[in-house]
This record gives sequence, structure tokens and C-alpha cells, in this order.
Amino acid sequence: MKSNYDLYCDHLRKLADVMFSSAVLQWDQETYMPSKGAEMRAGQLSTLAGIAHELSVDSTFGELLNKLKDDATLTERQKRNVELSLKDFNDRNKYTTEFVQTLSLAVSEAFVAWDEAKKKSDFAIFSPKLKLIVELKRKEAELLGYKQHPYDALIDQYEPGTTTADVERLFADIRNKLKPLIEKVLKQDAPRDEFMYRFFPRQKQWDLGMDILKQMGYDLEAGRQDESSHPFTIHFNANDVRVTTRVSETNFHEMIWSTIHEGGHALYEQGLPRTEYGLPLGEACSLAIHESQSRLWENNVGRSLSYWKANWKKVLDYFPEQMKDVSVEEFFKAMNKVVPSLIRTNADELTYHFHVLIRFEIEKGLIEGSIEVEDLPQVWNAKYKAYLNIDVPNDAEGVLQDIHWSHGSIGYFPTYSLGSFYAAQLFATACKQDDSIEQSIAAGNMKPLLTWLRKNVHSEGKFYPAPKLIEKVCGEKPDFRYFMEYANAKYGVF
Amino acid sequence: MKSNYDLYCDHLRKLADVMFSSAVLQWDQETYMPSKGAEMRAGQLSTLAGIAHELSVDSTFGELLNKLKDDATLTERQKRNVELSLKDFNDRNKYTTEFVQTLSLAVSEAFVAWDEAKKKSDFAIFSPKLKLIVELKRKEAELLGYKQHPYDALIDQYEPGTTTADVERLFADIRNKLKPLIEKVLKQDAPRDEFMYRFFPRQKQWDLGMDILKQMGYDLEAGRQDESSHPFTIHFNANDVRVTTRVSETNFHEMIWSTIHEGGHALYEQGLPRTEYGLPLGEACSLAIHESQSRLWENNVGRSLSYWKANWKKVLDYFPEQMKDVSVEEFFKAMNKVVPSLIRTNADELTYHFHVLIRFEIEKGLIEGSIEVEDLPQVWNAKYKAYLNIDVPNDAEGVLQDIHWSHGSIGYFPTYSLGSFYAAQLFATACKQDDSIEQSIAAGNMKPLLTWLRKNVHSEGKFYPAPKLIEKVCGEKPDFRYFMEYANAKYGVF
Repeated sequence: MKSNYDLYCDHLRKLADVMFSSAVLQWDQETYMPSKGAEMRAGQLSTLAGIAHELSVDSTFGELLNKLKDDATLTERQKRNVELSLKDFNDRNKYTTEFVQTLSLAVSEAFVAWDEAKKKSDFAIFSPKLKLIVELKRKEAELLGYKQHPYDALIDQYEPGTTTADVERLFADIRNKLKPLIEKVLKQDAPRDEFMYRFFPRQKQWDLGMDILKQMGYDLEAGRQDESSHPFTIHFNANDVRVTTRVSETNFHEMIWSTIHEGGHALYEQGLPRTEYGLPLGEACSLAIHESQSRLWENNVGRSLSYWKANWKKVLDYFPEQMKDVSVEEFFKAMNKVVPSLIRTNADELTYHFHVLIRFEIEKGLIEGSIEVEDLPQVWNAKYKAYLNIDVPNDAEGVLQDIHWSHGSIGYFPTYSLGSFYAAQLFATACKQDDSIEQSIAAGNMKPLLTWLRKNVHSEGKFYPAPKLIEKVCGEKPDFRYFMEYANAKYGVF
Repeated sequence: MKSNYDLYCDHLRKLADVMFSSAVLQWDQETYMPSKGAEMRAGQLSTLAGIAHELSVDSTFGELLNKLKDDATLTERQKRNVELSLKDFNDRNKYTTEFVQTLSLAVSEAFVAWDEAKKKSDFAIFSPKLKLIVELKRKEAELLGYKQHPYDALIDQYEPGTTTADVERLFADIRNKLKPLIEKVLKQDAPRDEFMYRFFPRQKQWDLGMDILKQMGYDLEAGRQDESSHPFTIHFNANDVRVTTRVSETNFHEMIWSTIHEGGHALYEQGLPRTEYGLPLGEACSLAIHESQSRLWENNVGRSLSYWKANWKKVLDYFPEQMKDVSVEEFFKAMNKVVPSLIRTNADELTYHFHVLIRFEIEKGLIEGSIEVEDLPQVWNAKYKAYLNIDVPNDAEGVLQDIHWSHGSIGYFPTYSLGSFYAAQLFATACKQDDSIEQSIAAGNMKPLLTWLRKNVHSEGKFYPAPKLIEKVCGEKPDFRYFMEYANAKYGVF
């Protein structure tokens, strides 16, 4: 005889199987699917989304959750699973199956349109599909409900408890404290970095990227790396977590940062509790915590001098000609060059937050109706001029650069900035709690850091909400000053 | 207001979406999935199989089918769809959801075990999983029902209307008419073929294989080729039909035959009626007709002198060193060398049918209980000695060589021989009806042949049962003499 909790687990694991099957189809769509396959794939993803939705709003499951809510025999972990599932169930029940399928279909078609639009650098190809996505997202905000701003309902899906007002305060902080530092840095002489744009053959970059992933501790028997137009991490369970990267033969930054960034995401997924497959505790805490893991590896580790000192021999082995007149210190400075730029994913870690700010303002405008989809290229270009003093030469490198909107992800971007700030706080805490971490990184050994992250962050899954997790691990509430301390320390070097 | 027929289409297309999603997961499992992903993938496939089964036995759908059965307003094509769906529905209802899930799980685990067993050449690793498969298949035969032999129920799933007794008669024919020809051929001097085992670099073989596929008319925007341990064709719809091949750098046969063979299967799938997605008429007629398409390209086209004369320049361009002392006639004779051998998929087109005969006898024995799974290596090796005078050196090249049993496919092998015979009859008819076909092949132009196949075979889908389709296209019932005429004509050359 199965207990109610067992039945609950069975149901959620069935739902997880359907959703992760859908994820396999998405991975395939963005890596290996032939072009003509797109049309029917959209229908297949829509059907799976419909089935998943039916399972997630199943009334018998709802009754089970309400019984379990008051079940005093459950452990703390079980209680937390049930609590999170019940919240999710109540949220999901606000959607109709028809809405979910319509959104899924719109997203699949939007992705294909975005991909073509980006290739042709023509926003008009994407525009009608994005218009539909925005309409559906506005409907979604109404369905979910919100207190102050419809955008609140969308942020809440990625970062529960964070509101539009919170994000606005955050970006005020960024303007007040970060902007002066950037201005100071920009007054100094820019480091040389012309060597980053020499010719770096694809295969050698690929091999270096694989070395980097292995050194980080990414388990290649439980994952793989492929190429896609926009790098991403996707998981089907903790034993199958895949990353993609992109390689430019004339821009060495692309592969390095996408590989380390996605590798950080993937390490988190590979470290989630395997026994909780399909249950909330088997999932990531929040998107900002997810981003904290990628940013910690990318910035706090990957943009440090000691990391590249440890890996310098490897770089020289792969690229002796390209690097023959470059010192590791010059390499380090080039990787940390602060310069307002076009592409968010290639931005330095300071101006990066202005890229996020622009997207946040646009999303908020689209959702509240103060910005029209048709006007996006002009709006985008004007904001890049205003905040970063950048002229955007075309749609591909402007408004079409990110995949997110084609995925229907609106309300997601602010978590990127939040992630960097959590990363700084977590890394400072890790180095304080285990003083072997910094020395080990300098010796090319990432194990102590990964062990600390596994124990303190990854293995917790969704047991704590993000701010609580930070508080528990760091002994104090989330604080922006860690990021500023880190940034001031590093950019004082230049 | 949707008609009953529309509702019927909606339901079947939903079912198709689930089943083809499952196919994407299978493709991934056999091409790119990391090894640790296997365990949870098995569960995911099992869940999808369970959902598909629930949809296929849904009682409301059954009522709909029974209403449509007597609906006089349907077109002939619609009637045929309903008739086939109703037969399928009645068959499916003989299974429980539990049985379907158990079988799906057993198959996923068996595949992983087979893969490892083959790599280590150790049947014992695969044995317990295969034992479970056989038990489940015997149960399945009982569930489905049969008149004379439990194996009848299993063949009927792949080749409706063909019985164990039919197959036994067929193999008697093979023994009586084919064996004397083989004996005659073996008495002649064997052609030289040592050049086929020179070093052929992987990438150049890959490029030649892609050329071959393109020349056949395979649409690479609606498909792709990858590598897997056992070549296969898989489709998610007529616009996404994928093939895999295997490349050996020291055996030029492997890539050539697997590429042309799977290419033939794929052309059939790409030619099925797109508007009938998810419906019976959108599916292949039968497995034997499917195999007739692969064999027609592989043997009737690909093992002909005119085909290689047309492609000889290409072969010399890729492999000038390897082929510098070889004439196209010698190449042709090497590709048609008749020699009893170990591996079915590499066998010549005459002894091939004895490989099938052996598998048929073993399957029949396993299902009726006269052969035990544990004894398979000995049984296998003894039959290879008896029929082909071959000593099997190890399990990997013996009983573990084929993927089929790990997929739960028992009753499938006989369709291979049937396919070759249909191929001979269809190719003879095609050349008679359109006398430009042979000349075009000799000029490297496959279009007239593909056009004929598209019109006469592919576009029909499942409208006719296999023997009826042959009769309609060829103007006479299926006849073994076409294969014998073809074989006698070709092997008279030597």
C-alpha cells in the first residue's frame, strides 16, 4: 500500500518525465534538428506542454496535496516539497490548457522566427511573433495576479518574492555606486587586447573549452557540450546536464566565457539532490541563485589572475603563435577590459548591469503598454546610446541578440544582475570559511571550491528561498556591498 | 463544430506527438546521450509509452471509432484510416498499461545492457535482460492471441497476414532454389577484394557517404546523418527523418552499405503523405515494404555495375591512393563477393538470407520454449557452423551483433528476406514501366527511379496491405522468381 506521499512522488515524477522529454526535444531543436523539422516539432512540444499542464492541474493531485498539507507525519524536507508543490498547483490552476498550448506553440514558432530574423538581421521577421508573445505574457500576468505592477507577476515566476519595485531600487543602487567606478576605470588607459582577436582555430578552442570544463569538475559522463547559436545549459536529470557553447575563430572571448558560464550552471544542476528527481527539492533554488553559480565561476574565478596563471601553460600549448608576445598579466587585463559594448553576453562585468537595466526597462514598458513591439529596434538603439553611448549597427547585434524573448521568457533578465551580487557574496564567504580555496585555484585545482558549493548551495536544492539560503550560508542577509568590494578591489589594480 | 472525423484526427495526432517525442529521446539515446543519462531516460521513455498507451486505448476514442466505422459520408481514404485504427485499437486494448510500461522499461534497460555486453563481448551481461524481454514477448503473444503458433502473433505486428507457416515455406524456397546458386558461385574463383580493407580515413568516408545520400535524393533539410553503433533510420514526421551510419577505417563496406541501406528507408519516410501525419495512411505500408525500399537501393541499384561506373570518379577523387590499382569492374565484383560470413549486415545478398533463417529459427525456439536464453551463444554458434560453415569467434560478432532483441523486436527478422524479394519485383517493374530509369542510373541521375517510387509506393502510405500493393503496382501477386531471375542474371556474370 502506497502512502499519500508516495503517490505524490509518483505523480510529480510522471510530470517531470514529460517535462524533461520536452527538454530533450528543445535541446535537439537548438542543436541538431534539420530546418524543415521545425514545424511539426512545434506541435509536438505543444502537445507535451498540454499533457504536462493537465498533470500539473489534475484535481485528484490537488486533493492529495491538500491532504498532505496537514499531514503531521511528514519530515521537514517532505513538508517543504508539499508546500512548494501546493503553491505551484494553485498558480498553475490559474491557467487553462488552451492558454498553455497556445503559449507553447507561439514560443516554438517565435524561436524559429527569431533564429531566421537574427541570421538575416531583420527584426520585422520576428516582430509579429514577439507581439503575440507579449500579448500572451500580459494575459499571463492578469491570470496570475499581482499587487502593484503586472510585471511583478512575471518576475515572481523566476525569483519568487522579488518585485518590480525591488528591481528598480537595485538599478538605482547600480547607477549610484557602480556608475562612478565605471567612469573612473574608463578614464584610465585601456589595456591592450588586440591579441584576443587573432585567429584561434575552432578545434583548438573546442579542446581548450573541454579542458576548462573538466578542470571545473563538470562530469562528462553525465553531460556533454555542443554548439548552438546562443549558449545554454539544459538538464533532463542530474545525471544528464548538457551545455552548449559558441566558438568564434576571431574572438577568443566568446568560447571562454560561454564555456565557463554554462559550466557553472551545469555544475549546479549536476549537484542537485538526485533522490529528489521531479520534486521541488530536486530543483534549483531560484534563477538568481542559478546565475550566481555561473557568475561565480565566470567572474570571481574565471576572470582572476590566479586562475589564468594556473592555466597559462595550457593556453600557450594550444596557441603558441597567437600568444607569443602576451604575458599572463596582459591576458588577465584584456579579459577584464571595461568598455561599453554591444553584446550583453560579451560585456565586462561592470557595464554588464547596464545591459540588464535596458532589457528590464523595455520589458516593463512592453508589459505595461508604454512601449510597442514594432518600435523595439528604435527604442533599443536609443537606450544603448543613452546608457552606454553605443551606436547599434544592426538588429542582429542589437535587439535580436538574446534568445530569451523568443522563449517567452520575460521577467528573467533582472535575475542576471541579482546573480552576480549573490556570486560575490557567496565567493567571499567560501574563501573565508575555507582558506584552501584560493590557493587551490591558483594551483589549478577547483575541487575545494566545488566541494564547498556542493555542500552549501547545490545539495540544498529548493529547501530555502533564495534570500534565506544566502543568509544561512553567509551568516547575513544579501548585501550589494560584496559585489562593490570585489569590483573595487579588482579594478583598483588597473 | 468539429466533425467526428476531425476529432479522430486530433486524437491520433496527439498520440503521434507523444510517440514521436519518444522517438526523439530514442534517437538521442543512441547518438549523443551521456552514459549516466541512461537510467533516468529509461523512466522517461516508460512514462511516455504509458501515456501513449492510455491515449491509444482511451474508451471515448473507441466509441468514436465505432461511430466512424458506419459513417457513410467518409471518403475511401478516410474509411481506410478508420478501419486500420479500429484494428489497432482492438489490438491495443488487449494490453494493460502496466504491461506496456514494464515492457518499455525492460527494453530501455536491455538496450543499455546490450550496448555494454557488445562492447565487452560478454553475452552474460545481456542475458538476464533478454530473458525478461522473451518472457514479456511470450506474454504478449498470449494477450494478442494466435491461431497456430505464438510466434504468429509477433510476426503479425510487423507484417500483418504473414504467419509462421508462411515464413517456413519461404525459407524452404530459399533452401531449394537459392542454395544451389550459392554453391555454384562458391565454386568459382573468388574476386579480389583486399583493397576494400585498406585504410580509408573517417572524414573522407563521411563525405562520400553524404554525397551518396544527396545523389539518392535524400533531403538534408528534412533529415541528417549521425554515427551510432548500429545504423538505423528514425522519423519524427516526413520532414524530419534521420539516419545513422557506422564507419570503419579498415572496412570500406561498412559505411557504403549502411548509408545506402538507411538512405533507402529514409527516402520512403520522406515520401509518405505529409497531410496524413499521425494517421495510418501517413505510415509505411509494412516492414517488408520498408525493407524493400532499403534493399532496392542497396542491392538492385547500389550493387550494380552501372551505379559504380557513374560514381567511379567520385570514389577516385576521395581515395586515389587506395584505388590506384583497382578498376571499376573489380570494385563491382568485390562488392558482390559471395562468401559465407559472420555479420548479417555485411553479408552478400545471397548468403544474407541464411542469416535471417538462423534468427528466425532462434526466435521461434525462444517463443515456443524449445530454446533457452542462457544457451543462445552455443545455439547461435552451432547454427552458423551448420548453415554457413562459419566459426563464431566471440559474442560481439555472434549473438550480440544485432540491436533488435534489445529493442524487444522479435518477429521482425523474417521481413528482411521478404523485403529483398519485394525489392527485386518492384525494381523489375519500375525498369519495365519507365525505360529511362536504367540509363539515368548509369548517368548518376537517380531522379526517375525516385519519382517512380514516390508515385507508386511512397505516396500510398498504408492504403493497401503489402501483398495488395505489390499486386496493384506490378500487375501480379508477389513472386519469388523475380529475386531468382535478378540473382541468376547478376551472378551469371562472374
